[in-house]
Amino acid sequence: MRMYGNWRSAAAFRVRIALKLKGLAYEETFIDLDAGDQHKPEFRAINPQGAVPALFDGDGPPLTQSLAILDYLDETRGGPRLLPEDPRERARARSLAQVVACDTHPLYVPRVRTFLMDAYGLPKERMMAFVRHTFESGLKTLETRLSTEAGTGRFCQGETISHADLCLVSLWVGTGIFGVDTAPFPTVARIAQTCLEIPAFAESHPLRQPGAPQT
Amino acid sequence: MRMYGNWRSAAAFRVRIALKLKGLAYEETFIDLDAGDQHKPEFRAINPQGAVPALFDGDGPPLTQSLAILDYLDETRGGPRLLPEDPRERARARSLAQVVACDTHPLYVPRVRTFLMDAYGLPKERMMAFVRHTFESGLKTLETRLSTEAGTGRFCQGETISHADLCLVSLWVGTGIFGVDTAPFPTVARIAQTCLEIPAFAESHPLRQPGAPQT
Repeated sequence: MRMYGNWRSAAAFRVRIALKLKGLAYEETFIDLDAGDQHKPEFRAINPQGAVPALFDGDGPPLTQSLAILDYLDETRGGPRLLPEDPRERARARSLAQVVACDTHPLYVPRVRTFLMDAYGLPKERMMAFVRHTFESGLKTLETRLSTEAGTGRFCQGETISHADLCLVSLWVGTGIFGVDTAPFPTVARIAQTCLEIPAFAESHPLRQPGAPQT
Repeated sequence: MRMYGNWRSAAAFRVRIALKLKGLAYEETFIDLDAGDQHKPEFRAINPQGAVPALFDGDGPPLTQSLAILDYLDETRGGPRLLPEDPRERARARSLAQVVACDTHPLYVPRVRTFLMDAYGLPKERMMAFVRHTFESGLKTLETRLSTEAGTGRFCQGETISHADLCLVSLWVGTGIFGVDTAPFPTVARIAQTCLEIPAFAESHPLRQPGAPQT
């Protein structure tokens, strides 16, 4: 398989973790989002949305949208399942994942940040206030749910890794990049740290990918 | 089943269509988003995110996030399946759905519109420019994909209704509410019109729900 990704992309990070958890061989081509390579015709031919990740599995057309790719990998490959078997538990894991992948992450991707600065003429610091507000809203929802709902265990849903954990961690690592105060979110922090001790998560970390700033 | 929704909510609209397609009996309680009822403690106890829809199925905890609810209904109920059987076709239907449910709709929900006006002090017209830009970005991605990808048929994915159609229609009806020019999106228009001739879609239309403005 070949994935088109980027070191910083939260969505590519989720897919990278899933590929590693399932032990699948893949190569990743890094699209330089800062240089605007996602808007070049050759990448638009792969994903007209101009967004990463895009995953090629054999000769088929590219697969896009991180949650759709996670489901596809579960439906076509072995290895650990990334959703519980019980429908209610599955629904809860999906719901927690979508708090991140629908209601939080899409609000701070480069195309939104660029729009706020270029079309609205907002200075970077005001744009960043929007980004931090978005993070805090998403993290607050996760913290409230994870700290009060009976389904929470070692991971977001019970004792096994699910979509929810991949999404939670993909949000969590952004708190450092965007300077978000994480003190109010101890349950999110606990689960993120639990995940990041697992090699598939640790090796997929944005800052360990080619192109990432050296820390 | 009992759904907490709102006439205008695109996400509640999707779930309403699915319930009707499957012929499931349900009642809907309308949360007044303009009055801020989603932030009241009694609704936050149902969904700490303060967002609709929330669906109660028997005595279990509330189900939230529209795409998670669609999967849950398919996994626990009969009636027409809302995703194709083939994994690649499923992945394409999910990806198209997520272009709307992840990358478009969450950017124009009330909490974002309110933030742009209140925290940023933007006049309503500039906020609306952001909303229209968001719609146009999502519609452009859908139009490009639907008009060029081999999987498109009478519906987004082949000849059967899927998550992608529910999401496409939920975006489409917003173009009228928010004054978005739909002329550049003929394939999206064709599929939306095909869907809206089906009773489960037509009866679920936002403007046919209690609380909607009389037209």
